[in-house]
Amino acid sequence: MDNGKTKIPAAVVRRLPRYYRCLSALEREGAEKTSSQELAQALRLTASQVRQDLNHFGGFGQQGYGYHVRPLREGIGAALGIREPRGAVLLGAGNLGRAILKNFDFEACGFRMLAAFDVDPAIVGTAQHGVSVYPLDVLEEFTRRYRPSVAVLTLPASGAEEAASRLDLLGYSGIWNFTGVDLAERSPRLSIENVNFADSLMALRFRIK
Amino acid sequence: MDNGKTKIPAAVVRRLPRYYRCLSALEREGAEKTSSQELAQALRLTASQVRQDLNHFGGFGQQGYGYHVRPLREGIGAALGIREPRGAVLLGAGNLGRAILKNFDFEACGFRMLAAFDVDPAIVGTAQHGVSVYPLDVLEEFTRRYRPSVAVLTLPASGAEEAASRLDLLGYSGIWNFTGVDLAERSPRLSIENVNFADSLMALRFRIK
Repeated sequence: MDNGKTKIPAAVVRRLPRYYRCLSALEREGAEKTSSQELAQALRLTASQVRQDLNHFGGFGQQGYGYHVRPLREGIGAALGIREPRGAVLLGAGNLGRAILKNFDFEACGFRMLAAFDVDPAIVGTAQHGVSVYPLDVLEEFTRRYRPSVAVLTLPASGAEEAASRLDLLGYSGIWNFTGVDLAERSPRLSIENVNFADSLMALRFRIK
Repeated sequence: MDNGKTKIPAAVVRRLPRYYRCLSALEREGAEKTSSQELAQALRLTASQVRQDLNHFGGFGQQGYGYHVRPLREGIGAALGIREPRGAVLLGAGNLGRAILKNFDFEACGFRMLAAFDVDPAIVGTAQHGVSVYPLDVLEEFTRRYRPSVAVLTLPASGAEEAASRLDLLGYSGIWNFTGVDLAERSPRLSIENVNFADSLMALRFRIK
């Protein structure tokens, strides 16, 4: 589905996962059709913005009729690449890393979790929620053999920059960064998604009295 | 700083924490002035959008001169409420909850972490990174006595809705929700900030080949 990818503006891409989740929920509830109004309400957008956004997935909606839930969900899922899973590894199997391995559904987001890496001898050699933990110094060897695309960074902030450089050298395509350090993109080939908890909590602080 | 709050559009509010972080970093580096171009580059926005956003904090910028870093950072911090910390509690001191207690700087976001609550007898009665863990069934009593404003939800997804209703009844002003369940706002008095890891990973999946 590379044909559609380049045309979709970044701001729309940011919203696609929310459409996808909302449509998945509607599908689970047995809904066959939905409307821009219904989606707008669920996603706190305007109906006209929803119609604009979903125009990028032409063919699933009709004027005055609404949208077919399943094909629209599948179209967005295909655009997101969810149907073609990529390999992922996790660097740093401390509390946060283990919480993510335990609770997070990588498959549903288009990834397969292959292995975790850590430096702590107490955790290396164990399996955490079904994922084997290897010593961090075999990352190069593992990467050459299994060709993961993405690394989840759950190491301490102090190790973030060095790990990112190492992953860049190893040819990774993406970093999902939980270290709290804002990593800048170092090459166009390596996408970085900085998860910043503070932004979300500050937004909440603003909204309360 | 309530005077400015109601006037700032939601989309701008969403960006304020990023401005705040960027300005804090500039200040640490000793910068006294910055420009809309510099901020735009750091935040991946256009310079004209930066100027529009920062117009809501009038008086810190001058045409053709740029912005004074510290007063602008302080003005945004005040608008965000960071200088008047509110009490917070954490519900669910498992791996994710403990990772947040360990790594997250609540003070920097305008909160003071007062206590954690859990049902696991192995963890109740301990202190996790300096925060005492109480049995979940004393939440009512604790809340009446210490009047926290916000609850961090790091319990299993299955307990999310029930916990939210309980917090609503107890008069909480905000929920910082990590359960992965999208909680709908139940009353205008209770703001909910849903942190959805999946959205961010799906956005990354889209960006890699």
